[in-house]
Amino acid sequence: MTWRTNHSRIVYENPWISVREDAVTGPAGDGIYGVVTLRHPAVFIVALDEQDRVCLVTLDRYTVGRSVEVPAGGSDGEDPLIAAQRELLEETGMQAASWTAIGKMNALNGVTIAPEYVFLAQTLTAAEGSAQEEEGIDEVSWVPFDEVLQMVKDGRIADGETVAALAYAGIHLGRFR
Amino acid sequence: MTWRTNHSRIVYENPWISVREDAVTGPAGDGIYGVVTLRHPAVFIVALDEQDRVCLVTLDRYTVGRSVEVPAGGSDGEDPLIAAQRELLEETGMQAASWTAIGKMNALNGVTIAPEYVFLAQTLTAAEGSAQEEEGIDEVSWVPFDEVLQMVKDGRIADGETVAALAYAGIHLGRFR
Repeated sequence: MTWRTNHSRIVYENPWISVREDAVTGPAGDGIYGVVTLRHPAVFIVALDEQDRVCLVTLDRYTVGRSVEVPAGGSDGEDPLIAAQRELLEETGMQAASWTAIGKMNALNGVTIAPEYVFLAQTLTAAEGSAQEEEGIDEVSWVPFDEVLQMVKDGRIADGETVAALAYAGIHLGRFR
Repeated sequence: MTWRTNHSRIVYENPWISVREDAVTGPAGDGIYGVVTLRHPAVFIVALDEQDRVCLVTLDRYTVGRSVEVPAGGSDGEDPLIAAQRELLEETGMQAASWTAIGKMNALNGVTIAPEYVFLAQTLTAAEGSAQEEEGIDEVSWVPFDEVLQMVKDGRIADGETVAALAYAGIHLGRFR
């Protein structure tokens, strides 16, 4: 056994995260481990239109400030696909006829328990039900896939989950090999 | 202004993370926001040998269990490149003559302030100074790049930062376009 939990206590909770401090015995001996658990999985959507353009949203994150990302959000406990469909609609006003689950990953696993699901959304049409203002979305843009990769390279996109989501899409689409 | 902080208090701290709860006014109105700050940036290393193989480590994460990842670790406050060189040596017993900064990203930016640096390490040679046991590393393997992408696709690799680090490497190397 690599890890043994000798004691565990919740040190903070809110509707989105729970933080606990455990007394552990691990590879380096006895110590404490602070674990942040997200209450609900998050979903990330690579929406790709018929002109090979990817949907990007620009928003102001309370944590890191202005950020360019693929549409994403918390699942609020529902099925990840349903959550992804809702988030795409809310953040961009679009719906997709084709949905493919392309990845499941864990973020920041040195500290957090945060499962994340990645979907590819294709065959897009405009719909009603956008809530961009409430979601804090300042801008929705459609950017050619190769330009999106250039934005990752030069740092205009710096959201780690967006970079990973693009990798899953690239592998699925045969662009990353 | 998208966000206003009306009040802020630290609710938990340990040597690695700090958690605060802020009273905020945001896009959806008044509420609270829990923010987890990592004390030091993390570093991720895509080590690529002359046979186009990527270094992967297998370890038991206290948070999510068994995980296959690129070498990584906390910077302990030093320069990210120095941290990356130290982590590669400690986790794999290798040193690299060529280092390239290929990405800077933020993880889990809905909740955390966690800057992360990604490096490509090439021209590798064995060295002394490994501390795999203390780091909790169970296995070090060298896997062809295309097989690594297959491992991402089929879920054998599910560490979000590893997926993103591979994307930065793929873009830099012209494999992802």
